[in-house]
Amino acid sequence: MTGKGLFLTFEGIDGSGKSTQARRLAEALTELGHQVILTREPGGSPGAEEIRRLVLEGEPDRWSAETEILLFTAARRDHLERTILPALEAGKIVICDRFADSTRMYQGLSRGDLRQLVDQLHKLMIGREPDITLLIDMDPETGLSRAKGRQGTEERFEDFGPELQRKMRAGFLELAQEFPDRFHVVDGNRDADRVAQDVSDIVLRELRSMP
Amino acid sequence: MTGKGLFLTFEGIDGSGKSTQARRLAEALTELGHQVILTREPGGSPGAEEIRRLVLEGEPDRWSAETEILLFTAARRDHLERTILPALEAGKIVICDRFADSTRMYQGLSRGDLRQLVDQLHKLMIGREPDITLLIDMDPETGLSRAKGRQGTEERFEDFGPELQRKMRAGFLELAQEFPDRFHVVDGNRDADRVAQDVSDIVLRELRSMP
Repeated sequence: MTGKGLFLTFEGIDGSGKSTQARRLAEALTELGHQVILTREPGGSPGAEEIRRLVLEGEPDRWSAETEILLFTAARRDHLERTILPALEAGKIVICDRFADSTRMYQGLSRGDLRQLVDQLHKLMIGREPDITLLIDMDPETGLSRAKGRQGTEERFEDFGPELQRKMRAGFLELAQEFPDRFHVVDGNRDADRVAQDVSDIVLRELRSMP
Repeated sequence: MTGKGLFLTFEGIDGSGKSTQARRLAEALTELGHQVILTREPGGSPGAEEIRRLVLEGEPDRWSAETEILLFTAARRDHLERTILPALEAGKIVICDRFADSTRMYQGLSRGDLRQLVDQLHKLMIGREPDITLLIDMDPETGLSRAKGRQGTEERFEDFGPELQRKMRAGFLELAQEFPDRFHVVDGNRDADRVAQDVSDIVLRELRSMP
């Protein structure tokens, strides 16, 4: 399943600024002449977007944690097959706003202790990990107030309190230690230009070290 | 996950008459005073019915075999949690038209050699097997012409040729040998009354032997 391109993901708590940073990195790499695909999860392919709607719309307890994990994994499999892997095969850089690490945190950690189940399902049905994961680390309270200031109909995963934000932040930092080869932690508590510069430096360094 | 009721499934190739037999058994058991739930897969709960529409509508190659297996498993998990297990806990008889054995055959066998993947996913996310599975065994050509004679918009799984029907029939008979404790093979090449009588005899015998 390894392609010739580069598979980059952005992770972090809600309001960490990762979507902004993903977009800015895509713009910067495109200006440098790279072929870039900017995508996001859940969603990222026509089928996965339909599954996204099924998961995110409706009542919060519409699906059990286990069913939700299965639906996210179905969407990820479609996204991987139809969007990510073909782009990597064509030598492109794929930048994805959230991937399996978000499921490890939001479904594995926050909805009961299902991390092991998430990992087993990932191993069985997805397998692929990103080449580089940029964790935008952010103060939980700041992230929460930024997330709450946004408009949107898909509020389910942002409708959590400060305690969960703290738990998720700590969880992401632990995940970075668990996968040190691909994780890079970037301090998101600074203005977006500074953060973007750090992100760009990390990625350009990795690109130069590629064969 | 074991309930106090009885979990019965009907399996067989398209056009084998299993839906008719499931309904007739439900009627017969209800007349005898049992509390019966008649359900079907894919579907059987509000969420699972929505996933069913996602899987069965649209182009046949809309989903890869692997994504389809994940969607069926998500639907099954929801169906199990919201419909089957609560009914069993309440001491009811659950009669289900198709269950995991159909996924073992239609996704595991017909769309590439994915039986092992289907089994691993079932073990991880579903676990539960029926107490009794009634396999309505049917001549593949007869089944095919009966299935083709029906109206319906969900033709995907019936739009297969005689070769696949033969392969599925042989696969179901092998499955019956693999799970001899719960499988009962009933000759479906007879008039529906005779088949219904055999089905009823088997189930009443099992009910009498229950503690």
